[in-house]
Order: sequence, then C-alpha cells, then structure tokens
Amino acid sequence: MTPKEIIAQLRQMMQSEGWDAIVISGTDPHSSEYLPKRWQARKYVSGFTGSYGTVVVTHDHAGLWTDTRYFIQAVAQLEGTGIELHKLRVPDAVDFPEWLAQHLGEGATVCVDGLCMPLATVEHMQALFAPKHLQVASRPDFIDALWPDRPALPDAPVFELGVEYTGRSRADKLAWLRQAIAEKGCGSILLSSLDEIAWMLNIRSRDIAHTPVVIAYLWLDAQKAVLYTTESKFSDELRAALAADGVELAPYADVMQSIASWPIDAPIYIDGGMLNYALYEKVVERFGSAVVNATSPVKLEKALKNETEIAGFHRAYHKDGVAQTRFFYWLEQAMQRGERITEIDASDKLISFRREMEGYLDESFAPISAYGENAALPHYSATPEKCSVLQPRGLYLIDSGAHYLDGSTDITRTVPLGPLTDDEAADYTCVLQGMIALSLASFPRGTRGANLDILARMPLWKYNRNYGHGTGHGVGHVLCVHEGPQDLRQNLYDQAVLPGMITSCEPGMYCEGHYGIRHENMLLCYEEEKNEYGDWLGFITMTCTYIDTTPLVEELLTDEEKMFIDCFNSSVYEALAPDLTEEEAAWLKTKTIDCLFEPMEEEEEL
Amino acid sequence: MTPKEIIAQLRQMMQSEGWDAIVISGTDPHSSEYLPKRWQARKYVSGFTGSYGTVVVTHDHAGLWTDTRYFIQAVAQLEGTGIELHKLRVPDAVDFPEWLAQHLGEGATVCVDGLCMPLATVEHMQALFAPKHLQVASRPDFIDALWPDRPALPDAPVFELGVEYTGRSRADKLAWLRQAIAEKGCGSILLSSLDEIAWMLNIRSRDIAHTPVVIAYLWLDAQKAVLYTTESKFSDELRAALAADGVELAPYADVMQSIASWPIDAPIYIDGGMLNYALYEKVVERFGSAVVNATSPVKLEKALKNETEIAGFHRAYHKDGVAQTRFFYWLEQAMQRGERITEIDASDKLISFRREMEGYLDESFAPISAYGENAALPHYSATPEKCSVLQPRGLYLIDSGAHYLDGSTDITRTVPLGPLTDDEAADYTCVLQGMIALSLASFPRGTRGANLDILARMPLWKYNRNYGHGTGHGVGHVLCVHEGPQDLRQNLYDQAVLPGMITSCEPGMYCEGHYGIRHENMLLCYEEEKNEYGDWLGFITMTCTYIDTTPLVEELLTDEEKMFIDCFNSSVYEALAPDLTEEEAAWLKTKTIDCLFEPMEEEEEL
Repeated sequence: MTPKEIIAQLRQMMQSEGWDAIVISGTDPHSSEYLPKRWQARKYVSGFTGSYGTVVVTHDHAGLWTDTRYFIQAVAQLEGTGIELHKLRVPDAVDFPEWLAQHLGEGATVCVDGLCMPLATVEHMQALFAPKHLQVASRPDFIDALWPDRPALPDAPVFELGVEYTGRSRADKLAWLRQAIAEKGCGSILLSSLDEIAWMLNIRSRDIAHTPVVIAYLWLDAQKAVLYTTESKFSDELRAALAADGVELAPYADVMQSIASWPIDAPIYIDGGMLNYALYEKVVERFGSAVVNATSPVKLEKALKNETEIAGFHRAYHKDGVAQTRFFYWLEQAMQRGERITEIDASDKLISFRREMEGYLDESFAPISAYGENAALPHYSATPEKCSVLQPRGLYLIDSGAHYLDGSTDITRTVPLGPLTDDEAADYTCVLQGMIALSLASFPRGTRGANLDILARMPLWKYNRNYGHGTGHGVGHVLCVHEGPQDLRQNLYDQAVLPGMITSCEPGMYCEGHYGIRHENMLLCYEEEKNEYGDWLGFITMTCTYIDTTPLVEELLTDEEKMFIDCFNSSVYEALAPDLTEEEAAWLKTKTIDCLFEPMEEEEEL
Repeated sequence: MTPKEIIAQLRQMMQSEGWDAIVISGTDPHSSEYLPKRWQARKYVSGFTGSYGTVVVTHDHAGLWTDTRYFIQAVAQLEGTGIELHKLRVPDAVDFPEWLAQHLGEGATVCVDGLCMPLATVEHMQALFAPKHLQVASRPDFIDALWPDRPALPDAPVFELGVEYTGRSRADKLAWLRQAIAEKGCGSILLSSLDEIAWMLNIRSRDIAHTPVVIAYLWLDAQKAVLYTTESKFSDELRAALAADGVELAPYADVMQSIASWPIDAPIYIDGGMLNYALYEKVVERFGSAVVNATSPVKLEKALKNETEIAGFHRAYHKDGVAQTRFFYWLEQAMQRGERITEIDASDKLISFRREMEGYLDESFAPISAYGENAALPHYSATPEKCSVLQPRGLYLIDSGAHYLDGSTDITRTVPLGPLTDDEAADYTCVLQGMIALSLASFPRGTRGANLDILARMPLWKYNRNYGHGTGHGVGHVLCVHEGPQDLRQNLYDQAVLPGMITSCEPGMYCEGHYGIRHENMLLCYEEEKNEYGDWLGFITMTCTYIDTTPLVEELLTDEEKMFIDCFNSSVYEALAPDLTEEEAAWLKTKTIDCLFEPMEEEEEL
C-alpha cells in the first residue's frame, strides 16, 4: 500500500472508532533508538526513513514532525504522500501535542498505540489537552489491521556475555537491584529498556542492528525474576544458567496478562520516561496508587563502568586503532594510486578491517562517511544513489564505531585528502582545540555536562562560530552507542559527570555547501585527587587512533595544546606499532612520531 | 530582654496559642536583603547579626539555621542563649522545614509571621509538612508583644531620580507594565519588591542602609495605581508629579484592608517568590483562583539597562576609579611612612574619597576590608573589636562599592603590601586569568550563567583549586547591589545572560589561615554580531580601576592575557589622568603604563 492508501484506511478506522486523530510514534515498546522492522510503523505509513519523527493524521490533515537534521530528506520522501512536514527545533516550532491541542475541537479523542509511546509522552499530551478536554485513547497494535505483512519479532539467538567481560555476575546485579528498589520502599520493578535488561542479565543478541540487546521485559521482586521474551532464542545451557540465578523465562506477549498476578503487598517501581503507556495502564489497574515512577536505578549504575569493563573498552579502542590505521593507510595509498573511491567504498573498507579483529560483533551504528560538502551535514548518510567520489583535495570525515565482545567504540576523524583552504585549516585547528580543552579539564565532583560543554566550544565561539549539536554522549558496554544519563551539552540537565562514565567528546564545525569537520575521542572520567577544595575528577582518553597534524595552524596552538597532541600521537604509535605490519607501523610513524611539534631526542648509543 | 528571656516568652505564647513551634525568619515583608531595624527580629531574638539565618523555637529546642559564612560568628554570638547552631550548605545539611517535619508530632502547628515570609517558603513548608499533617499558622507581627521598643518604620525623605538618570519616564514604565500583565491575561498586579517599585516609579530614598529604596507596596490596574507607603516622606512636588502620572498615595498599613476593594473582573498577577504570605492570604480571599503566580515582569525588564543607565554606570565607574586611585596612592604612601593603618581605617579612607565625588549617595554595601588571613573569609567584616593592622607584606583585599545618582558600583581589588609567597603570586595570577577568560568570552544568545561560569574557574581548577562562591551577580541601577535575574554560578538556573545586563565577575581564591584573593570587575553584556551560527554577545568591562601587575607570574600568562591586562591598565590611565592631580596621575602611570608587558613605543617627535 502507498502512504496515501494507508492514510485513507486510517481515516476509515478513525471514522468507525470515533477518533479525531491518530498518532504514529517513531519508537517501539522499549523506547529504543534503533528499531526492528516490526516497529518501523512510522516508516511504513509515511515512507520517511529518518531516525526521528512522528506522524499525525486527522480527518483533514496528515503531518510529519521532525527536526532540522531531516528537513531536506523529509521533503523528498513525503512528496506525493499528502503528508505535510512540520519543522521542529526552529524558532516558534509547534510540536504535535501542541498542534493537536490547537487544532482539535473541544472533547476530541486522539488515538495512540500505547505500546509504542512512553508514559511520560502520554502525560505530556494529557496536560496540554486538559483545557479543551481532549482524550487520549490507547489502542495497542492498531496498525496490524492496515499492515498485512507486518514483520514478526526478530529471532536471533541470545548469548551470555561472561563475567570476564562484564566484571560483575548476574546474581550480584540482581541482589543490587533488589536492594536499590527496597530503599525506595518498593517490592518489585518492571524494566522495559532493552539495554538495562541486557546489562542486568549479562545477555546479548542481534535482534536489532547496531544494538546487541534482546527484546524482552524483566520483572522481579524479592523472590523471583521473570524475563518475558522469545524463549526459543535461548539455548538450554543459557536457560539453565538463568534459572540458577532465579530468572525464569516466559513468552514475550504474556507480560500484559501476567501483571494481574504480580504480588501487590508493596509498591512497584517503574520508569515512566521509558515504560510504554499500555503496560503502565495494566500496572495501575493492578497496583492503584502503589506505583513509584522514577528514573530506573539501572540507568546510572550501568553508566558507571567497572574495572573489567574499562579494561575491555581499552582493548576495543586498541583493536579499533589497528583497524583505523590500516584503513587510513589504505586510503592514502589508494588515493595516491588514483583509484575511484566512493564514500560507501571507504566505509565498507573500514568495516572490512574491523571484521578482522578478534571479538568483533557489529558496527555500533551506520557509519557516516562524508566527503567535502557532504560532511557539512552532521548526520549525513551516503546511499548507493547519492554518494560522492573522494577527490585529492579538501577534507574527508568518517564517524563510525563497532561492538566487540570487549566493549563498544565510537570515533570520528577528519583527514585531509589534499590541499585545504585557509578556512578549512583554521576550523580544523579550532575544533581540535575544543576537544583538547575538554580532554584536559579537571573539575570537582558535582560538575555537570551543562557546566563543562563550553570548554569544547570556546575556541570556535572566539570567532563567532559554533556547531549545532551536543558535545558528547555516554556509550554503553556492548549495548547502545548512545547511552545516558550523562550528556555533554548546553541544556540544563542535572546529572554530574562521574568516575567510571565513558563519554564522547565530539566538537565539530560545519560550513554549509563547503566542508564539515568533527574530531571525536572517547573520555573516561576518573578520580584525580581529593583536597580541601573538592573531590577532583578528570578524563583519560580511551581512543587510540592518530590525529592528522598536517592541517593544523601552528600559530593558533598554545604550548599546552601542542604537548597534548604530541603525547597523544606518540602514545598511539607506541601502543599500536607492535600489532601492525612493519610497513603499516612505518607509515603510522610518518603520521605521528615524525610529525611531533617537539621532536623526541634520539637516545644516545652507549 | 536577653535571648533566653525572649525565648521563654515565645514558649509562653506558644502554650497559650496552641502552637508547637515558632519560626522567626531573617527577612522583611518585601524579601529584602538589607533590613531596616524594625524587621531585624531574628537579631533581636537571638543576638545573631549575620545577613542570613532563621530561628526556630519549639517547646524543647531553640535553633539557628545559617550557612558556612557564619559558623564561627554564630557560635560566638549564640553562646549562653541556649540556641543551637544548625549548619547549612554542608554535606547532609537539614534545613529548618525538614527539621520541623522530622521532629514535630502528627498534626502539630507551626507559627510564622506571614508578613516576613514569602509565599514560596510557606508553600515549601506545607509540601514537606503534608505527610504528617502539620499546619502552618500565620500571625503577622506576633513579635510586637515581646518587643516593647520595636523600632518604627524609617522616615527618610523620598526623592525623584529623573529621566536624565533613568532614561525612561514613569509614565512609559507604567504603560509597559499594564501591557505586560494584560499579555498574561491579568487586570492588575501587586508589587512588593522594593527595588521593583523604586524602578517603576523613578523614586529613591534612604530608608535602608546601602539600598536606596522606599518601603512600599505598589498596586495597579488599567485605570489607577496606588502606592502604599509613608506619605509624610513625600514632598508636595513629588506627590503632584506622581499624581500627574496617575499614581496616588495611601498609608503603608492600609494595603491589607484595601485588597478587599480591588476590582476582580480579571485575575491579579503576583510573584509568590517575593510576595509575603500574609498579603497572599488576603489576595486569595479576594480573588479566589483568579491569581497568576509568576516571576514579576519587572525583574527582567529592570535588569536590561537602557542607554542612559549604561552611560550613568560608566560615569559611576569613572568616579569610583578616581576615588580608588586616590585611596591606593594614599595607602602606598602611608605604608611607606610606616603609619599604623587598620582594616577599618583603610575602608573609612576609601569612603572619604568617594564622598568627595559628585552625586555620591551611599556605599552600596558595607565594605570588606581584609588583610592577610582575614581575606580568606570571603564575607569578612572588620569590627572595632576585631580588626587587623596592615603589615608591609602579603596581600590586602578590599571589596566595596557606592551608589551615585548615575549608577551603582561594586569592585574588588587585591593589592600587595610587600613581599609575597610563591603561592600568593601564583593564585593572584590564576584568579586574574579567570576574570580575563570570562571578560573576553563571546557566546550565542541563550547562553546561561551555568554555562559560562566555568570560564572563570578553569585557571584554578587546572591546579585543583577553587572558590566556594558564585562568580557573579547582577547590579541594580541605584538600587540593590545584588540583583537578579541573571546569576553566574554552577547552579542550573535557566536565565540567559542578555544584552544590557550588568553583571559582576569576581573569581577568588581563599587559603584558610593565610590569605585571600579576589579580583572583581563589572561586565556589561552587549551584541557583537549576528551570523549564520548565532546571535553573538560579549562583555564590555565597566570598571575603571587599575590592576596591580607586580604579583603576576608572567610564565603563567598567555599573550592574549597579557594583551588584555595591557589594554585594560592603559585605558584606565588614559581615562582617569585628566581628573587626577599631576602627582596622582604620575603615580597611576607607575602602576599602569610603566608596568605594561609590551611597553608602548614612544611617539617620535616631528
């Protein structure tokens, strides 16, 4: 069916059900970032493939709400569908709940699929709808009727990520969570975030591209734990291991009716920012007001990486460094040979080098491989239909990452393919200065991302230049490449950056129609010292891939910045050389040791 | 009466009234920072003279809650009173509302003087009290019965601050406010903040030390405006001028019963963060739910200084610069002559130089004049009983300011009186680097104090050192020396720094038992340029007093920092020299032009 036909059918459904609007959200029952096909309903209805967007259909209007990243793409993909683009993150933007509150008549009903919308979003709608007495009606899976060949749940096998990688046993995590909810006066908890469940049980799968989690719900109380999932994906061995820790399996679809039998002698803990509204309704039916709605305790605990996880991240960045060195060596050689290389050829090549590394599982997201002006779009995605060929001039940007059994990576490098303009060189330098300033920061415990963010921006702000995205996000351990709760950006969000958190640092500069630059390293927060002025924290750089110094404008750099670059590049060489061929190591030496601002003195022969 | 006797009487009152606790807050009916004697009830009851604190009396306990600044002073002043110190701003601090909620029995009653507590504080208490059903009873002026010689309201005359100083007529401000409340759907507004009222009506007085405001309430609707105040303080001429703009006078005490006659055809606007609870109760009796409780629109409007006010601030800092130059010249000479100078002698001398300047009204706060280790207490106050004598070594800090008819000043300088330790010199340098970094910042519109604050701290954080106070506050125009809504500190407070705001920049470093350093300039936010990356703002330094460069550790300074210091000091010299005696100007030259990092080239004789 075409979008036009689907929308016509949605309107018929609205007619017969007495609804005045239907909302098709862009997520799944677990508030996931990457969705299995079954839950790509927004794409099915509208044809729009961006990662963020909501479709709303009323009797006389159909609209897609999305943000700045996708305006051009949305206009192209919505052509001929009758769906109008509503722009978000622009001055005076009106999001869909406000739009509905403005456009619907007194007492109208808005249908949502309560499975694919978290409680918090429904509550936000209800608050905006109250003055006009609009109602929200939840109809789980209403899309089924219009989607004859709707894909089934994925069935990739589940595997255990052992304590040698996770550093903490399932039994220990379960005991910790039981304690954590008891401290909040709760007797049970329902987890719906897939990464939280995978972390809790030390399990992983390939259900969803780029995110090695298992589609499931986890409920537990002091006595037992039940994992609602596709049981056939679990081996007998893994079932036995889970059972040994008191975790039993139940069919995924059973969670709904199970709630009616959960013990109600103490309140239940839920995270309304993540839990879908359909399950929440059942929870309230069962527990009444004995529901504690707060951020899941797993969210922060998971972000504070333990020593085993940190060691794994180090191994992962080392492997990534080897693969990236081979890639950039290949790229330089191939360009010199005059080979025709497209953006997709380049990222495919990088992936092929990564695949050779031990413990490689998957890319942690679809790589952004962008040459020249394409790199000015921070979320550019090359397609076979629209894909540039690399030229021997200007800048090439590649933002990519992988999941290894050890840990997950996310790294961006921008490299010169030939001569650069003065602006390219100056911006390349300023963006790197921002990354260095944040990497070198010392700060007292309690400092938040909103306080730190400016450090990465000041070298650009000095010239009244800026980038329109956040500076950094947390990264999960073989989980989601974008992980909370920390967040490095200007927004006032009250989460301190704490020891054990691993956060990206990725300032950029985008000159529309010309070029884009981003440098991204991964930073581990650690404790420096305690003194009478505070409990001091700092960052250790995890990333182990050289920074190309040839574009740098030396006059702009301070001695401290030069020293950072020298130390970083020489440590990359020292770390990687033993794992490279002689030829590769020699090449890396030309990019690092031979390019230091303060050349190292040769040791004297005795 | 002694505190012991007063507390005994308070307990008798509690007995006969059926109260279980009494709260004596540290403010007045207008949420003022500086209080006339009439409202210094907390000092009367406890003997504690700090600027911040609350006394709570129950049948078996009497306590004073105050913060880190006053612990030592409170312990001394509370000795023998039976009042216990409760520490705030320390780990696990319990503020008085939480303490009451913990210690009182189910259903107990807490008496407050609703005149001296804003609605927001009462609401906060009520929320904490709800689980145990504690009640808040408001009894305005209950202290009268225990305070036989309670001072009357002050009666200083009121004067008009003309449009030549304010840049905006009373009529224009009244029309603007009527429009602003109409946009919120309100027909009237009750203002209780004294600086907002003084700003609205272009009037000033000397009712309160350091704050040239008039004790009053202002109510207005579309038709009329009533100023509830001490009418005898107004000249016939000023009354006529107010009447011409439709402002009538009424007795201060009449506001309570007047509320019952205010028109209720549209909601009333109040600011519950400032309006006292006693008046709020009357407003609710009259208006029911037709009350809009939000931040007063005057707060932000007043902070965005107009061109006339900015020109006045420039004149005020120029005058202050002349007075300070004379003071530091005198200080150096007197020290060289071996005169005995106490901290109080020094600040008195500075005040005497300021008094000579045209349009001087008052100091804008009690000067902090602190030598050596005393300066390690950021809010140190020398007293005739405890007052150090300046010695020819180490650092002397003076933080002071004045109100002139043109504008208000607040400035801190730390100067060497002789040899310094390496630590003193390094910290002096780092603190100045922090002030320079913030002064030079460019930032896009929307950037808040929480985002900017780190710039002033980084040079200290680099060495794991810090200061325990905010970086900057707004300053009123011949009003309060501490003025919102902007605030430069780590706390997440959602107010952007906007063009026209004048904000202090005052990083410091305090080494307990040894020395204290603070450098404070005043910064005017202005618009730099608009481009595709944002609407860029920056700061212009208003302060016109030289910075002593002799303690600076040159190796720590970047070229940019040296250039800032050179430009600042030479501009101070150029600006002030024409208004100094030849001798003073020659001396200032030795402190500025002769101390530049890059000496200016002599112009060639033609």
